[in-house]
Amino acid sequence: MAEQAVARLAGIDVGAPAHPIPSADFGLIGLAVMGQNLILNAADNGFTVCAFNRTTSKVDRFLANEAKGKSIVGAHSVKELCSKLKRPRRVMLLVMAGQPVDDFIEALLPFLEDGDIIIDGGNSHYPDTNRRTKYLSGKGINFVGSGVSGGEEGARYGPSLMPGGNEAAWPHIKEIFQSIAAKSDGEPCCDWVGDEGAGHYVKMVHNGIEYGDMQLICEAYDILKRGLGLSCKEIGDVFAKWNTGVLDSFLIEITRDVLYYNDNDGTPLVEKILDKAGQKGTGKWTAINALDLGMPVTLIGEAVFARCLSSLKDERGRASKILGGPTPKFTGDKQTFIDDLEQALYASKIISYAQGFMLIQDAAKQYNWKLNKPSIALMWRGGCIIRSVFLKDITNAYRTNPELENLLFDDFFTKAIHKAQDGWRNVVSKSALWGIPLPAFTTALSFYDGYRTKDLPANLLQAQRDYFGAHTFRIKPECANDNFPEGKDIHVNWTGRGGDVSASTYVA
Amino acid sequence: MAEQAVARLAGIDVGAPAHPIPSADFGLIGLAVMGQNLILNAADNGFTVCAFNRTTSKVDRFLANEAKGKSIVGAHSVKELCSKLKRPRRVMLLVMAGQPVDDFIEALLPFLEDGDIIIDGGNSHYPDTNRRTKYLSGKGINFVGSGVSGGEEGARYGPSLMPGGNEAAWPHIKEIFQSIAAKSDGEPCCDWVGDEGAGHYVKMVHNGIEYGDMQLICEAYDILKRGLGLSCKEIGDVFAKWNTGVLDSFLIEITRDVLYYNDNDGTPLVEKILDKAGQKGTGKWTAINALDLGMPVTLIGEAVFARCLSSLKDERGRASKILGGPTPKFTGDKQTFIDDLEQALYASKIISYAQGFMLIQDAAKQYNWKLNKPSIALMWRGGCIIRSVFLKDITNAYRTNPELENLLFDDFFTKAIHKAQDGWRNVVSKSALWGIPLPAFTTALSFYDGYRTKDLPANLLQAQRDYFGAHTFRIKPECANDNFPEGKDIHVNWTGRGGDVSASTYVA
Repeated sequence: MAEQAVARLAGIDVGAPAHPIPSADFGLIGLAVMGQNLILNAADNGFTVCAFNRTTSKVDRFLANEAKGKSIVGAHSVKELCSKLKRPRRVMLLVMAGQPVDDFIEALLPFLEDGDIIIDGGNSHYPDTNRRTKYLSGKGINFVGSGVSGGEEGARYGPSLMPGGNEAAWPHIKEIFQSIAAKSDGEPCCDWVGDEGAGHYVKMVHNGIEYGDMQLICEAYDILKRGLGLSCKEIGDVFAKWNTGVLDSFLIEITRDVLYYNDNDGTPLVEKILDKAGQKGTGKWTAINALDLGMPVTLIGEAVFARCLSSLKDERGRASKILGGPTPKFTGDKQTFIDDLEQALYASKIISYAQGFMLIQDAAKQYNWKLNKPSIALMWRGGCIIRSVFLKDITNAYRTNPELENLLFDDFFTKAIHKAQDGWRNVVSKSALWGIPLPAFTTALSFYDGYRTKDLPANLLQAQRDYFGAHTFRIKPECANDNFPEGKDIHVNWTGRGGDVSASTYVA
Repeated sequence: MAEQAVARLAGIDVGAPAHPIPSADFGLIGLAVMGQNLILNAADNGFTVCAFNRTTSKVDRFLANEAKGKSIVGAHSVKELCSKLKRPRRVMLLVMAGQPVDDFIEALLPFLEDGDIIIDGGNSHYPDTNRRTKYLSGKGINFVGSGVSGGEEGARYGPSLMPGGNEAAWPHIKEIFQSIAAKSDGEPCCDWVGDEGAGHYVKMVHNGIEYGDMQLICEAYDILKRGLGLSCKEIGDVFAKWNTGVLDSFLIEITRDVLYYNDNDGTPLVEKILDKAGQKGTGKWTAINALDLGMPVTLIGEAVFARCLSSLKDERGRASKILGGPTPKFTGDKQTFIDDLEQALYASKIISYAQGFMLIQDAAKQYNWKLNKPSIALMWRGGCIIRSVFLKDITNAYRTNPELENLLFDDFFTKAIHKAQDGWRNVVSKSALWGIPLPAFTTALSFYDGYRTKDLPANLLQAQRDYFGAHTFRIKPECANDNFPEGKDIHVNWTGRGGDVSASTYVA
């Protein structure tokens, strides 16, 4: 197919008027790095792609360079783009999330017909995708909001694709999507996620998990550097070794490369990079959604807050001169501690993914989406930033039992976390004594210990709320009696003063 | 004034038509426990209050009982209520936040005149208060959104009041508000907070801090119970002692009372209370706002998530049978550990309030509110749920230096946290080894250690983002050179593969 396409293209001047016969299988708008690479990827897979960009000079530059000799045509207007697409038209937007997506949808509508398909491949917020799916189905257009992950490389050689929206579109895009997607053990890392914004929702959680994974790696690097006093090269060696074990993953691999990468002066470039990270994105949305749904996704929350703290660079500089702490002095065997750290990172990762799937599970309930958990794990298995061997084990867990209540209840992960916890506890307790912050490692351990606790101290909290605000409490079933029946809202006059009126409306 | 008011009221049948002369200084709508107690409080302070409630039988019941013989009149309709109020009319709503507030505003409007005042004393979300202030000033009505804290007791004997909105209202409500408010060293715990929703915003953060304080106390109780094996009586004694020191506060005091409170069978009631806490309120809003503003308010975040986790009671029950951990065995001197725990709680509290003021400070910038930090601390000093001796020290800190960048930079608090940190670190590290979750204590310590760190590992994170997404990074000023100039967005081709195109729009 690619050959014919290339042949068909021979000698065509893109500036010229549109072909008599629409020739392109797929249209793509937005020629930033992700867009260019997705086009090249689709062309390599034998599809003819028509490229458009608001700044049309970018189209010409792309066709004259990266796209040269491939089954790629260009357009200088949305109208020309649509005229070059086979029916049903498939147009993918890779533009900045927000207003630009709505603008391009409006620009496209006059040139689309019933059953044509618009795909938003940007990082749109899922409520926007819910809205756009409804809006466009009212106009006979099938809208798809698709998560795309994998960065530059992924887009070029096989990303993870998480499409959701109007399912009528799926049969028409399945072949293209599954061809360009990454493969894991022969299976494409792309499947239909669910209704409306489900695809962008799952991508949002993916990004939240990505925030968490990156924060965990940064904390491991920090404690190896400041706790054990290792050099970048030595830390790179640690990550190289970890990448051959349970932590084998894209992010561990690139961390190794980054730590090995030296500047012209032969010193590690990473040490010269400003430690100020942005956080205005999908990680924040995940944490906010977790708070809204009432799910304790603590690791992503701490990862987002860690980025917020990093951005207070100047204030931290002043604080470092005023606020003191201990000087870490490591004693004992370094390799043993490094092995503990590997287990701590592994255990924390298990917690983070368990929390992520708790959130997805709850969202599916709240939003009435049918979500296929095994295929979500598979979509993350390859192509995307969080791809790892670990996700194969998660896929297996959900394939074995799609109704699995919690990832931690899967035998493989129960065993894994039991094996890991001694090292994990050692690392967390040492970091507190050394004064090296490990917010993600520690919140993961707090969650594990809280989650496995039958009776948490929230009984005292409920008593306090009833004491000062007459908010009432309930009784533990095993303690119910005639005074305090099970399932009833109970108010006690704790002080002897104050009223027996309970707060029906006021929330302190 | 009270005498005259009572005299004026002699023999008036509330059922009867409205007076010829409006007699009431203040109207209050909503006779739940907070509303009733605020009315009684205002009456005790010599004001004549007119009470109304949607279910009017509540009005009659209130007048026949708690309100009997006081300067309190009733109304059976909003119209009657307004007819009984002196000009400018001052009507306070203590109804459930949300639609009911808008409904009552619409119900009141036909009976109000230019310059009349509506006060919303519920826990409204500050964006609603922003909206209502604008809406009503367009109609010549001065709207006030006031935080009210103190629960039942506070409302009755002196709450903390945090009014904000249309400042034109302040001269007309100042006397009533500052009379009924709690006093701290003779100063009323009530002052004008700022424009629009500033009053409800400050109350929201107050409630977030309240979530944090309560969570810290619960964690202390948990580790004393499960870590040291103390009885409720013994733990009550610990809190009784703490209440005479730096932790002296309302919440520590009531915790003592709760722990001492026995059921009819002579065993502590608290142990029978279901450990399932709600969290759909203002604490959640605070955490979400922190994420939106990008401020690392980690302790409140963990406190909200801890409530979320507590609500998964049944799932935790199942988890407790599957997921194992260590059995805490305490060795050493219990009193020494209890003293460490007191220091840990104190230090964590300092962090939580520092984070809260960081958030308020940033919000004032973002929303263009002039906020008076010393008076905010003073408003929290007495009357409200978080009242404490500690808040006197915060008031002093901001009175000494209203421009104080961070509470931790105040000499008193720098010294306090330095003194506390050894005990704090010991408690946190032990809890990790014992398997008793202290999410709020530990996140506070992580924040302290991160905040005082000049160079956080976010440099690695920025390198990763540039590696996989071409997101670019910046160079540390001290490392800038011709290759890598300061303040420029830099992209490096880390792999030798991939492009040099940087991601202008795409955010991974």
